[in-house]
Amino acid sequence: MLTLYGNLESGNVYKVRLLLSWLGLPHRRVEVNQVRGEPMSPAFRAINPIGKVPALRLGDGRVLTESGSILYFLAQGTAWWPADRWDQAGVLRWMFFEQYSHEPAIAVNRYLLRFAGELSSFDAERIRFNDARGRHALQVMEDHLAGAEWLVGSGPTIADIALYAYTHVADEGGFELAAYPAVGRWLARVAALPGHVGLLDETSARPVERLVAG
Amino acid sequence: MLTLYGNLESGNVYKVRLLLSWLGLPHRRVEVNQVRGEPMSPAFRAINPIGKVPALRLGDGRVLTESGSILYFLAQGTAWWPADRWDQAGVLRWMFFEQYSHEPAIAVNRYLLRFAGELSSFDAERIRFNDARGRHALQVMEDHLAGAEWLVGSGPTIADIALYAYTHVADEGGFELAAYPAVGRWLARVAALPGHVGLLDETSARPVERLVAG
Repeated sequence: MLTLYGNLESGNVYKVRLLLSWLGLPHRRVEVNQVRGEPMSPAFRAINPIGKVPALRLGDGRVLTESGSILYFLAQGTAWWPADRWDQAGVLRWMFFEQYSHEPAIAVNRYLLRFAGELSSFDAERIRFNDARGRHALQVMEDHLAGAEWLVGSGPTIADIALYAYTHVADEGGFELAAYPAVGRWLARVAALPGHVGLLDETSARPVERLVAG
Repeated sequence: MLTLYGNLESGNVYKVRLLLSWLGLPHRRVEVNQVRGEPMSPAFRAINPIGKVPALRLGDGRVLTESGSILYFLAQGTAWWPADRWDQAGVLRWMFFEQYSHEPAIAVNRYLLRFAGELSSFDAERIRFNDARGRHALQVMEDHLAGAEWLVGSGPTIADIALYAYTHVADEGGFELAAYPAVGRWLARVAALPGHVGLLDETSARPVERLVAG
């Protein structure tokens, strides 16, 4: 069985949980809690030296890391990864956009505002800085989705999963999703796909263990 | 002929120039200068709505964006993209690591220290914040390259290109590369590959035009 390391609140972990659900692949989850700093623990860095969740252990013991790489690996041979080279480049384009231009603004502001506790003056400046970048990223999505049902081609791909994860909770980072109506309609389309699971819906097939005691 | 939009100093543009050189694909370059803010100009956003270089226009007029996506597209069917699914996931893992955990620290500090001009107190705090993240990223590479000649498998892939671009100028961002000897040996291996071009070596097959007058 697949073993997924990470916490439910993480959008990067959620991406993998969404695809596992849509592919009908059962997994067990091992809690590695970001707010408690567990991704940088020696126990987890023995699994992923980068110290970031998620990590996915395959049945043969090999470990995949980086959410985008895990999505790519799992999606091969399914409709979540298109067959055409141009469309494949389009999927990766949105996935790199997400990791470079979207997540560092939208997910980081969500983390700072919702999970980080007391904020320094540097954090407050980061939030203002990220707010402009995040609104730019959402506008890029809005402009594209005003003329398209899905990010690439005529059906959902792992690009939609990658962008859905943090966009659907962007309000928790202080972003007004009502200002992006085409994004809102796309979020509803993703959420309506059969097999969709919510961010906090536990989908582990076995009781969740903790990697770090405490 | 391929048209590459971007400036020579950009590591993200350099990734594409390196692969074009190694694949023997001639291109013409159109200058879109980051320091002058030209990527966010209306003229360039008509080419790439995200407002970031590089962009690559194919002979048929279609435009690729995001350096990782461009590398993926060009490398298909060549040795720069491995045939095995596990190795492919490994390549993407390093490429996502670069865009999420390496470039935002190392390339941003290089930009702030070398190109941005006068720095605000917020910029100074960003530099300190990024310095710790960048040293962590370099240590992750060091630990891996201490036991491997290339990032994935037994030869160079687009993962090596993606990481080489900003690592080889990390000193301009205040990072002491002497502290990472395995990274240093790997940089030398990449630079010794036949067809390697330097960051500031113009490789445009035609005179460089400017997208934005001035």
